[in-house]
Amino acid sequence: MGGLFMEQFALKGNVLYTPRKDELKTCPNAYVICREGICEGVYETLPEEFREIHVMDFGDSLIIPGMVDLHIHAPQYAFRGTGMDCELLDWLNTHTFPEEAKYANLDYASRAYGIFADHMRKSATTRAVIFGTIHREATLLLMDLMEGSGLVSYVGKVNMDRDSPDSLRETTEASAMETLAFIRASAEKNYQRTMPILTPRFIPSCSDSLLERLSEIRRAHDLPVQSHLSENPEEVALVKKLMPQAEFYGDGYDRFGLFGREAKTVMAHCVYSTEAEVERILKNGVWVAHCPNSNMNLASGIAPVRKYIDAGLRVGLGSDVAGGQSESIFRAITDAIQMSKIYWRYLDKTARPLTFSEGFYLATKGGGSFFGRVGSFEAGYEFDAVVLDDSSVVHPQELTLAERLERAVYLGLDGECIRAKFVRGVA
Amino acid sequence: MGGLFMEQFALKGNVLYTPRKDELKTCPNAYVICREGICEGVYETLPEEFREIHVMDFGDSLIIPGMVDLHIHAPQYAFRGTGMDCELLDWLNTHTFPEEAKYANLDYASRAYGIFADHMRKSATTRAVIFGTIHREATLLLMDLMEGSGLVSYVGKVNMDRDSPDSLRETTEASAMETLAFIRASAEKNYQRTMPILTPRFIPSCSDSLLERLSEIRRAHDLPVQSHLSENPEEVALVKKLMPQAEFYGDGYDRFGLFGREAKTVMAHCVYSTEAEVERILKNGVWVAHCPNSNMNLASGIAPVRKYIDAGLRVGLGSDVAGGQSESIFRAITDAIQMSKIYWRYLDKTARPLTFSEGFYLATKGGGSFFGRVGSFEAGYEFDAVVLDDSSVVHPQELTLAERLERAVYLGLDGECIRAKFVRGVA
Repeated sequence: MGGLFMEQFALKGNVLYTPRKDELKTCPNAYVICREGICEGVYETLPEEFREIHVMDFGDSLIIPGMVDLHIHAPQYAFRGTGMDCELLDWLNTHTFPEEAKYANLDYASRAYGIFADHMRKSATTRAVIFGTIHREATLLLMDLMEGSGLVSYVGKVNMDRDSPDSLRETTEASAMETLAFIRASAEKNYQRTMPILTPRFIPSCSDSLLERLSEIRRAHDLPVQSHLSENPEEVALVKKLMPQAEFYGDGYDRFGLFGREAKTVMAHCVYSTEAEVERILKNGVWVAHCPNSNMNLASGIAPVRKYIDAGLRVGLGSDVAGGQSESIFRAITDAIQMSKIYWRYLDKTARPLTFSEGFYLATKGGGSFFGRVGSFEAGYEFDAVVLDDSSVVHPQELTLAERLERAVYLGLDGECIRAKFVRGVA
Repeated sequence: MGGLFMEQFALKGNVLYTPRKDELKTCPNAYVICREGICEGVYETLPEEFREIHVMDFGDSLIIPGMVDLHIHAPQYAFRGTGMDCELLDWLNTHTFPEEAKYANLDYASRAYGIFADHMRKSATTRAVIFGTIHREATLLLMDLMEGSGLVSYVGKVNMDRDSPDSLRETTEASAMETLAFIRASAEKNYQRTMPILTPRFIPSCSDSLLERLSEIRRAHDLPVQSHLSENPEEVALVKKLMPQAEFYGDGYDRFGLFGREAKTVMAHCVYSTEAEVERILKNGVWVAHCPNSNMNLASGIAPVRKYIDAGLRVGLGSDVAGGQSESIFRAITDAIQMSKIYWRYLDKTARPLTFSEGFYLATKGGGSFFGRVGSFEAGYEFDAVVLDDSSVVHPQELTLAERLERAVYLGLDGECIRAKFVRGVA
């Protein structure tokens, strides 16, 4: 991601994308055209008006939309893949909070976030919605680094004023003031692709007064919101106790205008959302960040994604590092499909398993909608593309393009096999 | 795996292994000593009697026992990670049987099995129990290639005389005769590390007469047995219909002496084993090959591994390529842990999730017992070791050895990070 920008160009190769969840389009040896960062569509041959544009020929490679990660914790990246013998609340106290406390130290933050941003740059992810920590300065540093990574991202300074260890507990007032300072400072940076997002950690660590203050700040600055919702039964029970007046967990955010409607909002997990909560999510247009890897690792459960899709909810995928072990959204696709199969088998035989096409859709156009017209090669979409060279995977038989993509995702070829990546048309 | 043999040597590095399922031993900067292919134990400093032996110093690398794969289909390797939108019987007919039919062609088999054996060689797996196809010549070719891979393996010519497509259905007589010819031919090869195993595919594709013949052959040649058991509800129902006299699925094998006791036997899956079946598995000393990745992909379900372990069953892990998408046993470890968490959450709150240590034990000493004293660095164990260099994974904080191993397994570092592999002391 050197920031190379060309007004218009075409990528040539095998183009695959999902304009609809049930339709995996496969276009062999096709041209996907970018003009000023926007996709002009996919063509078998170059149209007359584009005959002169620069063509990057990627031969037999696969060209797909960039992956969208709707939920990832940057400060947890350092301990991904460790401490997995825990459930959520235990895991937060034993592993997560002690690590997040370290980000008070800017040297540590610089080293750790540098590693994180470098991995995001190398990944197939082109868009991400990111949690920082409570620390304003470290989170601004994270924004600088994400800006440099080439991804388009939302980054949030976390708010926590109760039920947290001393080292990660702000006063209500400090939390609000630091959030305002964070918003101001990030505005002064004039980032091209990095935006602040309000980030109350979850209701257990935010008092009503803090949510009230964040609500005011949100209205004043028209910011989007990210948080956690109905991830774990004990967490849901704790929220009921802490905020008895809320009809359900999500209502706890909604009472403060932090749950969709005019506030663009993404909520991670939604494993235990009640019918009333699902209705509110739908009515308020809240995005659900489905994080199956994390939901397995923390023994949280399985979110009923089929039901959410059928009900018309906005659903995308999240890696949820470090509840999730990896930043790979390819992995999130297969985890989502696999968990939907287990859900179908044991919990609801009417909830048909996700297909590969549907999983891919969630990872691209599903989550992409949080960023606007993102996640597809239809004309008018922002031009996010990943080029995968799967030629290192030797095989004895012919494969269709759809099979090659399915294999690339199941085998996790979003590491060494990425040959190029474009975000809004910038390489 | 150049076949380099030294009478005695030591590996130096950070040694980790699980002598018991609840004990992950971590030995920093230790020596693990090999004499004539057998482990002499792990030492902080070299004992006097070994002062002169050759020491291979692997610095800060992790040294672990080799992984054991109790169930993998070599001919399915070619289409791993594709065709995942199916359930078992559908998947067999649509993807598996057409691919397996190709192994009648030795050119195709040579190309495909060459790729398979090469990947097994590069993997962290040191022992494998492998299905071929019905084809004698192709399966012998597979044995040649596995012998060259350096792994110790059992390889079986598959038996199928009913309910299979024409291209994969033998007559009962031909199936028996070809099996005998296969056993004879493999004996003449004088392999150092590759052994034949009887491989009735599963009861749906083996008539009672064929099982009777295999039973005779087994007794005459004292061979071990591998097959499938209680993987999927429809399969279990089919077996009930096809062999109504059997008390349960496993009894169908047991009636023919193909289910443990004097016949060393490994059965893949056991997702739907009844209480009576579990009792028989225990009584007969049958090994269970737990294949969680496959059980997710084919929507089979979750085997109750905690119960099996607590009941004293012999349990190891299988990749079950291509129901499973990858030959990685690291992946099988994390899948087993993750599925045990979902099982605990939804199906049985008394079935405590597997810990990392337990998952690692299943992958090493658990499955290793099928091969004898294999899967540990205790004195007297066959010397199978894998050296992992995880230094490419940069991180900002200190990690314990146990955390580094957990991370290596969760991040799947059994690819590029393998620095050396030893099987029975041979590099």
